[in-house]
Amino acid sequence: MSKAMKLLIDSDIYNSFFTISLLFLINAFNLKNYLLAQNTVMGKDMEMSTKKLVVGLAGMPGAGKSVVVNVAVKMGYGVVVMGDVVREEAAKRRLEPTPENLGKIMLELREKEGNNVIAKRCVSKIEKAKEQKVIVDGVRSLSEVEEFKKHFPKFTLIAVHASPETRFKRLYHRGRSDDPKNFEVFHERDMRELSVGLGKAIAMAEHIIINEEKLETVKEKIREVLEKVERKWMR
Amino acid sequence: MSKAMKLLIDSDIYNSFFTISLLFLINAFNLKNYLLAQNTVMGKDMEMSTKKLVVGLAGMPGAGKSVVVNVAVKMGYGVVVMGDVVREEAAKRRLEPTPENLGKIMLELREKEGNNVIAKRCVSKIEKAKEQKVIVDGVRSLSEVEEFKKHFPKFTLIAVHASPETRFKRLYHRGRSDDPKNFEVFHERDMRELSVGLGKAIAMAEHIIINEEKLETVKEKIREVLEKVERKWMR
Repeated sequence: MSKAMKLLIDSDIYNSFFTISLLFLINAFNLKNYLLAQNTVMGKDMEMSTKKLVVGLAGMPGAGKSVVVNVAVKMGYGVVVMGDVVREEAAKRRLEPTPENLGKIMLELREKEGNNVIAKRCVSKIEKAKEQKVIVDGVRSLSEVEEFKKHFPKFTLIAVHASPETRFKRLYHRGRSDDPKNFEVFHERDMRELSVGLGKAIAMAEHIIINEEKLETVKEKIREVLEKVERKWMR
Repeated sequence: MSKAMKLLIDSDIYNSFFTISLLFLINAFNLKNYLLAQNTVMGKDMEMSTKKLVVGLAGMPGAGKSVVVNVAVKMGYGVVVMGDVVREEAAKRRLEPTPENLGKIMLELREKEGNNVIAKRCVSKIEKAKEQKVIVDGVRSLSEVEEFKKHFPKFTLIAVHASPETRFKRLYHRGRSDDPKNFEVFHERDMRELSVGLGKAIAMAEHIIINEEKLETVKEKIREVLEKVERKWMR
């Protein structure tokens, strides 16, 4: 070892340099870990949600939204039902999910959190879903579509359609507690759905599935449409 | 001849009776002719217009309304174009059919004659059409549908649909003077059409024809839909 070297090692200059280097290294290591951690907590989630394929589904009452959802589930889609947001809010408030209560809660939520409150709450549901493909049942307006598109670049709006006559017959025979007992009640509900902008959403859909034929034919058509949507985002 | 008979023939009573009978006969004949005439002028027309099969056609810009109309014409349908009402009014006023002039005339007509002015003017056009089947191109709202249904019990609303992407490409390449030069102009026009209620009409259509496939396939589909509509009113 040269005299000069020995001098350097013993010197404060060398010690200082070593310490600084070490500190630097530790910091760099921490920074890397920090970044990695961030990536998992936020960065990766963000990345995943922008990568998520989200299909919005619009349709008049009785058009056959549930048929579309069932096919999607079999194809590996997660499901977010927009109507559940209000029902969950009712449960949280320990209120019966009567049409009146749900209507009131909906109005209240909109007043407090804006017109897109339902879509916004669904965004976090979609983000939390474990599936990379999610179908959102019950899109009812173009402003909801905008909200979804803001968060999920791979968002596609589809719709399902049947004639009023077919839809009425279906709902009449389904006989769920909230299904119409006569044509007037059915028509009123149609007009209510249209008044929030459902017609606009249907008219602007990328694909409309016609649900007037045999169930198997329609299911095949739904599969085709969803495959088309997936191919679109893979190109 | 008996004396009594001879007396009767010579008598004024017989003459009066004969005259009255004759007058009655002439009147009856006239009445029949009158009724027949009325029937042609009004009665028969009325009967014919209630018997007329009227198909209302709704669709977003570029969806393919003209394709549907062309197939209908080949099937013997008369055509009434709702947009022509405003263009004709412009011609009557010796105004250029610029979008601004047409917009102004539309507003004026609505103010003077109510929101359904276009539909009302089309009703008389349909009544005057020589064809027993008429297609109405460009239905844009449910109140227009109501107007048509009031006059034509055999009214059926159909729609034609394509995705916004497909529609924009079509209009862009069609290059008609009023076709959009960019996506923003296209989107604005979409929103204007939806704001008058076109989405509601599409959502409530009895049949929606999807116009995304090869022209021949779509034409076949249109024929099927129109045949279905005709069968419905024949049962």
